[in-house]
Amino acid sequence: MKVVNVALLGIGNVGTGVYRILTENAADIKHREGLDIRIKKILVRNMNKKRDLEIDKNLYTEDFEDIINDDEIDIVAEFMGGVDPARDYIVKSLQKGKTVVTANKEVLAKHWPDFEQAAKGTGAGLYFEASVAGGIPIIRALTESLQANNIDSIMGIINGTTNYILTEMSEKDASYDDVLKEAQRQGLAEPDPANDVEGYDAAYKLSILASLAFHSRVHVENIFVEGITKINAQDITWAKELGYTIKLLAIGKKNGTVIEARVHPALIKQTHPLASVRGAYNAIFLHGHALGNFMLYGKGAGEMPTASAIVSDIIYASHITEHKFSTFENTYKKPSAITFNTDWASEYFIHLKVKDKPGVLSKISGLFGNNGVSIASMMQKQTEDDVTGIVPLVFITHETSELSMKKAIEQIKEIGDVVEVASLLRVID
Amino acid sequence: MKVVNVALLGIGNVGTGVYRILTENAADIKHREGLDIRIKKILVRNMNKKRDLEIDKNLYTEDFEDIINDDEIDIVAEFMGGVDPARDYIVKSLQKGKTVVTANKEVLAKHWPDFEQAAKGTGAGLYFEASVAGGIPIIRALTESLQANNIDSIMGIINGTTNYILTEMSEKDASYDDVLKEAQRQGLAEPDPANDVEGYDAAYKLSILASLAFHSRVHVENIFVEGITKINAQDITWAKELGYTIKLLAIGKKNGTVIEARVHPALIKQTHPLASVRGAYNAIFLHGHALGNFMLYGKGAGEMPTASAIVSDIIYASHITEHKFSTFENTYKKPSAITFNTDWASEYFIHLKVKDKPGVLSKISGLFGNNGVSIASMMQKQTEDDVTGIVPLVFITHETSELSMKKAIEQIKEIGDVVEVASLLRVID
Repeated sequence: MKVVNVALLGIGNVGTGVYRILTENAADIKHREGLDIRIKKILVRNMNKKRDLEIDKNLYTEDFEDIINDDEIDIVAEFMGGVDPARDYIVKSLQKGKTVVTANKEVLAKHWPDFEQAAKGTGAGLYFEASVAGGIPIIRALTESLQANNIDSIMGIINGTTNYILTEMSEKDASYDDVLKEAQRQGLAEPDPANDVEGYDAAYKLSILASLAFHSRVHVENIFVEGITKINAQDITWAKELGYTIKLLAIGKKNGTVIEARVHPALIKQTHPLASVRGAYNAIFLHGHALGNFMLYGKGAGEMPTASAIVSDIIYASHITEHKFSTFENTYKKPSAITFNTDWASEYFIHLKVKDKPGVLSKISGLFGNNGVSIASMMQKQTEDDVTGIVPLVFITHETSELSMKKAIEQIKEIGDVVEVASLLRVID
Repeated sequence: MKVVNVALLGIGNVGTGVYRILTENAADIKHREGLDIRIKKILVRNMNKKRDLEIDKNLYTEDFEDIINDDEIDIVAEFMGGVDPARDYIVKSLQKGKTVVTANKEVLAKHWPDFEQAAKGTGAGLYFEASVAGGIPIIRALTESLQANNIDSIMGIINGTTNYILTEMSEKDASYDDVLKEAQRQGLAEPDPANDVEGYDAAYKLSILASLAFHSRVHVENIFVEGITKINAQDITWAKELGYTIKLLAIGKKNGTVIEARVHPALIKQTHPLASVRGAYNAIFLHGHALGNFMLYGKGAGEMPTASAIVSDIIYASHITEHKFSTFENTYKKPSAITFNTDWASEYFIHLKVKDKPGVLSKISGLFGNNGVSIASMMQKQTEDDVTGIVPLVFITHETSELSMKKAIEQIKEIGDVVEVASLLRVID
C-alpha cells in the first residue's frame, strides 16, 4: 500500500479537524483508496501548549526547517491563514518538490503565480479546494468536471459571516449593528470584522474562482469590492416587498476577452436558487455553455467542512502521478488579450431621502432620464420621518450602465431638496 | 501533446452533443488540458442515413468489430441506452483494454460487477458521470471530493420527466393525465412513460449513487420503487396548504451496516433546498459526517448537459495513468456485512375517503393507535363529494415504521364506512 507522509502547518480548529479525519478514518481510507496516509510532523508555535487532542509529542516541531528538510514528507498542508509566513512556507515546500494543500485564500489570491512557478519547477502539486467555500468542492468541479464548458458567469455567496448577518437582519428585522454584535459574541464574526463585512474575503475567493472558471488570472486588484456595512433593515424590508432578498454576491462574467469581477451586496429575486441560501451556508451558481445553470450548496466554513476539503485534496493529490497546472490566457498571451470591464450593466435599487416638496420627483426623474437611466418602478414610502418633512423615495431601474448610474447619482445629490442618497444597490434578476 | 482516440457508439442527440463539444472546443481542450482528443470512429446502424451534422463519412462504421479491433482507439463512449447490445460492447471494450465512458444507467445498475471485473483484468477505466443526473457532476463529487466523509444519507430528484410533471401539476393545478400528455407532446416524456413515471429510471440512478456513497453494492433489486401515477392534484393542493411540495425522491440511507434504498413520491417541506427544484432540473442533497449538508443542482438531462459530463469523463480519463475501481464492502467481505432495511421510519400523509357518519373517525383513530401510529394533524375537507355523503380525511402522522403503517392501513380498509385509501405518501421534514 502506498504510504503518504503529511505535515500539518498548525493544529488549530481546521488542523484538528484534519488530524481527526486522517486518524479516525484511516482504515476507511486504506480500504477505499489504497492509501496509508500518515501525519509525520505538525508545526506549532509552542510545543508545550496544553491541547485537547491527544497527539504524540514527537510529531510537534516549532521549526519549519524540520519539515522542509524531512525528505520523507510528501505533502505539506497549510491552514495558518494570512500572507506571512504562509507564503514563504508554501514556496519553500514546492521548491523542495513537496505537494502543497492549502486553505489560505488570501495568500493564493495574492501570490498564485509565484506558487505555480515554484510548483512547475519541481513537478509538485498545488491544491486549494478548502480555500473557497469550505467543504463545497467547487474547485474540483471547475477543474475536473466542467472541462467541456466555456463558463460565462459565476455568482456566489462565498462569505458565511456576511450571509449570516444579512439572513438574521432579514428574518428578525434586526439592525446591522445588533446582528454584528451577536455574531461576534457567537464567534461567527471576528472582533475586527472588516475582512468579512467589507467584502475582502469574498474578493480573495472570487479571484480564485474567476481565474479558474475563465482560464484567466483575475487578480484581486481587478475586482470591484463593496461590503455590507451600509445595508439597513429598511432596505431589506422594502426589497422583500418587491420580491427580492439582499445578499453579498461575488460575481464574475466573461464575454469574449472581457471579464468583469465584482463583490457587492445585491437584491436577488426570491425565486433565484441563491436567494434561499441562509445563514452560514455558501453556494456557487454558474453557467456553462454545455451544462447550463449549475449550483453547488453547502457549508462554507467550519472546522470539519474545511477539513473535509483538505483531506480530499490530500487523497486526490496522493493518487496523481503528474500534477496539472492552471493555464491562464492572460499570462501565456503577451500582451494579454484580457481586459477588465468596470462599466457593467445592471438594474439598480435606489433609496433617496428627500424633502416633501412639489417638483422634487420631477427633478430627480429628469436627471435619471438625462443620463439614460430608465425607471422600472417607484415607491414613495410613508415613514416616521414624515414629521420632519423628509420622505423616502425608492426606485428600481431598468438595466443601465454602472457609470451612467454613478453620474446620475452625483447630479441628484446636488439637488437642494435631496437630503441623502441612503442606498444604491445593484439588482440581479 | 498527448493524442487520445475516441470511438462514439451512436450519433443521436447525446452523441451529437459530444461530437460538437469535442470539435468546437478542440483548441480550448488542447490549450487547457494538453490533450488532442480525436474522434476516430462512430458506430451507426445505417451509414447512409441523412444526418444534420457534417461528419466525414469515413468515421462511420456499422460494425462494432471495426472499433474493438482498432488498436489506436483508447476510449469508447457509449450512450445507446438499454442493456443489449450495450452490455456486450462495454465488456468487450474493457477486455480489450479500452477505457469506457458511458451514460447508460440501466446497464450499469444491472451489470456493474461484470464491468468492474473486465476493467480490472486489463487496467482499463470505467467512467459514468453522465449516467446519473445528466451534467451534474455528482459521481466525481462522490469519488474525488467527498473521500474524507462517511455519507449517511443521500436524497435526490434525479428524474427530470417526473419532476416536470409534478411541478406542472403543482403550479398549474393540472391533472396527472393532462400534464403527462403535454409532456409527451413536447418530447419530455416517452410514448410509453413507464420507465420514468413508475420510478425505474430513478431506481437505476439511485443504485449507482448509493453504491458509491455507501461503498456497498446496492442492486436495483434492493430498492423499493413506487412511481407517481397515483398522485392527484387534490393531494398536491392539500400538501401545499400544509407547507409541503410533492416530489419523486430517490433516498438512500446508511446506518452502520444497514442500508435502506427507496424511490417514491414524498411530501417535502417547502423550506427544504430540494423543494425548490423545478421542472426538468435535478438535484442531489446529501450528508457527510465531516462536510455536513451538501447539494448539487443542475440540468439532469438533455443533449448538451449530458454531453458535458461525457466529455468531462473523456478528458478526466485521458489524464489518468492508473484507473481506480470501486470498493464495495458487501462484495469484498463474505458473507456480506450489509443488510437492507425495508421497515424504515417515516412520517406519513394519508388521504382517506369515508362515509360521513358518526363513529368513523373514532374507528380509524383506534386502528392507528393499536398499530402504534401517532397522528400529528388531521383535516376534514369539504369537497364537492359532500352530496354523495363521502368526505375526505387527511392525516399527517408522527414518525412511525413503514410496516406498522401498512398494517394499520390494511385494517382501516376493512372498516365498512371507509370507501377508499386514496393516498398514502411519505413525508420528509
